[in-house]
Amino acid sequence: MRMLDIILKKRHGKELTKEEINFWVKGYAAGHIPDYQVSALLMAIYFQGMTSSETADLTLAMAYSGDVVDLSSIPGVKVDKHSTGGVGDTTTLVVAPLVAACGVPVAKMSGRGLGHTGGTIDKLESIPGYNPFQSTQDFIRIVKDIGISLVGQTGDLVPADKMIYALRDVTGTVEQKSLIASSIMSKKIAAGADAIVLDVKTGSGAFMESVEDAFSLAEEMVNVGNLVGRRTTALVTDMSQPLGMAVGNALEVKEAIEILKGERTGALRDVSLILGAYMLYTAGRCSNIEQGKDMIQDALYSGKGADKLKELIHAQGGDQRVVDDPSLLPLADNVIAIKAEQDGYIYSIDARSVGEAAHLLGAGRSSKEDMIDHRVGIVLHKRTGETVRMGEPLADFYVTREELLDKAIDTFKRAVVIRQEPPEPKPLVYGVVTSEGVERYY
Amino acid sequence: MRMLDIILKKRHGKELTKEEINFWVKGYAAGHIPDYQVSALLMAIYFQGMTSSETADLTLAMAYSGDVVDLSSIPGVKVDKHSTGGVGDTTTLVVAPLVAACGVPVAKMSGRGLGHTGGTIDKLESIPGYNPFQSTQDFIRIVKDIGISLVGQTGDLVPADKMIYALRDVTGTVEQKSLIASSIMSKKIAAGADAIVLDVKTGSGAFMESVEDAFSLAEEMVNVGNLVGRRTTALVTDMSQPLGMAVGNALEVKEAIEILKGERTGALRDVSLILGAYMLYTAGRCSNIEQGKDMIQDALYSGKGADKLKELIHAQGGDQRVVDDPSLLPLADNVIAIKAEQDGYIYSIDARSVGEAAHLLGAGRSSKEDMIDHRVGIVLHKRTGETVRMGEPLADFYVTREELLDKAIDTFKRAVVIRQEPPEPKPLVYGVVTSEGVERYY
Repeated sequence: MRMLDIILKKRHGKELTKEEINFWVKGYAAGHIPDYQVSALLMAIYFQGMTSSETADLTLAMAYSGDVVDLSSIPGVKVDKHSTGGVGDTTTLVVAPLVAACGVPVAKMSGRGLGHTGGTIDKLESIPGYNPFQSTQDFIRIVKDIGISLVGQTGDLVPADKMIYALRDVTGTVEQKSLIASSIMSKKIAAGADAIVLDVKTGSGAFMESVEDAFSLAEEMVNVGNLVGRRTTALVTDMSQPLGMAVGNALEVKEAIEILKGERTGALRDVSLILGAYMLYTAGRCSNIEQGKDMIQDALYSGKGADKLKELIHAQGGDQRVVDDPSLLPLADNVIAIKAEQDGYIYSIDARSVGEAAHLLGAGRSSKEDMIDHRVGIVLHKRTGETVRMGEPLADFYVTREELLDKAIDTFKRAVVIRQEPPEPKPLVYGVVTSEGVERYY
Repeated sequence: MRMLDIILKKRHGKELTKEEINFWVKGYAAGHIPDYQVSALLMAIYFQGMTSSETADLTLAMAYSGDVVDLSSIPGVKVDKHSTGGVGDTTTLVVAPLVAACGVPVAKMSGRGLGHTGGTIDKLESIPGYNPFQSTQDFIRIVKDIGISLVGQTGDLVPADKMIYALRDVTGTVEQKSLIASSIMSKKIAAGADAIVLDVKTGSGAFMESVEDAFSLAEEMVNVGNLVGRRTTALVTDMSQPLGMAVGNALEVKEAIEILKGERTGALRDVSLILGAYMLYTAGRCSNIEQGKDMIQDALYSGKGADKLKELIHAQGGDQRVVDDPSLLPLADNVIAIKAEQDGYIYSIDARSVGEAAHLLGAGRSSKEDMIDHRVGIVLHKRTGETVRMGEPLADFYVTREELLDKAIDTFKRAVVIRQEPPEPKPLVYGVVTSEGVERYY
């Protein structure tokens, strides 16, 4: 088998076999196939696409290129969730304890964030003492004990995906649906879950800006998941404005705690509840979605979700008192109110720009080596469609350093558009993709 | 400027600027831009194509990436020719002396052959004493003295083209018209010619098998040539069977000599005469093609072409007596007649397979390091459309070693198809492409 023939076959628009896909993925990971051939193949894939069967083969080849977490010693159907990423997207911290409280084990590995705000691991690290880096043994033991563990990646997971993604990043081959789907799904499979719920974001703050692209990616991932024997469901949800009101690490943890304690409603809560219902349903814990919604709501209103978060924090060495007293979280003392400069309707709040403003305050990192400041961030006071008066606060900035503050304020102000007419309302959840097909809600 | 942005721009099907093309070609040649980015760009070019203006910019960027031969001290319009390559394609040895005899200076650099048979330099080296490797000074002096010099490449010409071609070869990006055109034209421009006549082959033995692809490549090259200020003309000619009757190095020199001495007619002579007429016309030596044809024929019938070949051989250290006595050329003593195994019409003679048979006899090289045996090869006795009787010789094999002889004979026999009905006749010249447009003869 020759890599050149594989490139030419794909260039001609033909379907690669499982053997051919394994050949190039393994050969690249092992250093036998040079990156210039892989980048040419990736560009050919960009133009010719891949079939579901090729995408599934690529997913498995990458998933099994390194360590694979074996969760089989944990009884029950282990469920994982994944978000394609957004701003103020704290659903994991809300939904994971709720699902675990309903008796479905959540053994989840998350990443650090690169870009505007931190990832789940960064957020958890803002809880004093919380240690996301557990050995695989401890990770499994904690899930067995309390039904949940949220950790950072351990071991050498999906090395082929890491190499291929790094190459795509510098060769203009990131934006290809099948490559995106296989990259995400390979990580989920290597992390050992039996059932997967995907939250595919759409809108200005999302990787897939258009609703159609988001559905298309969702379908691709659900296809792949089911082809490789993982029960997979995907929701397409809105990311045209930040999902939660908080953008920043400790601030987002605080918001998640308030939701779990029943003190807060809003979009973040609503999306988390639906995701939770689908996690229960996909894991087979309930026979229909309505049942799942009831179970998740019970876990919320009974306080069992908040209790489960306490157990989780305690099990991983953190100070569980933050749940009862969020003031124990590290928050910046210097809080600056950003005020509206005119009356009107909040016409739009560009999620990406709000994320950038938070990044400028220190909430994100530009390179892997950067330090995140857990204390800083933005708390919105308004959402799209609400009215505002001149001088009324649009948001509070939690600030620890002044250097980029003016730029952050400027970025934020340009993100918030105030007009005299209200915007068209947007759905929060655009639809769901299951193995049975696509259901659109709009 | 970032290479990633250039890749993305081309991926989106947009036209690159001259600055962007210079950036990546120079950056790659200098080692600043990695090959994995260039191969991704080349694959994007494969799918999105290049405009004439981009192709011209790429051609110039490659042409000026290394040494450029300065022929300006030679008076007159210097004309060059280039063939896209075929089997029994000895036109340079016939036409270059004829054109020089008509008073147009021919200062031509040729390559060695890789594949079935040798290149022009390999053929010339079969003349005892002929030295194709002259210094640039001597090269120019010889052209000034006698109006012609045929040499191998000197200096570091088109290093960027060499690097890019080597990368294309292993990344499945060879077969792209604009990339082919810019690679050929960059070499011609670096070699210093003012006027260029291209012989684009079509048919089973050619790189561009279909007539349409050949015209398309011809148009692309003529466009580029004229855009960069070189008077350029292209002929599209047949390569469905070997052009000359001889395939092999000394054998082809012998055939060329016989044509120049008026002892032979046939397809090789006819194509050479037309190429010569267009070389005179493109160089401005005559005001129309009919005049050019007359001048070239005069040079042939008067023996001035043969005399010019003698002068050339002498000037480059060779034994000019081979022109009067071709038996001084090194030819194998062992000549084996290959006979027809049935009566009928010669329906086709696959040029590529005849070339492979000659290669098996030792006439070609598989890698740069291989030695060519100038003495071996094949002399055809029949052409497509002629009748043949069982037992009549189809060809003579000039043999010096027996190892691969059976395979060579087998390859040759499969190349010659004999049927009861004659084939459709094919034109020898399909048409011509000039700056004024395309003229088709069929």
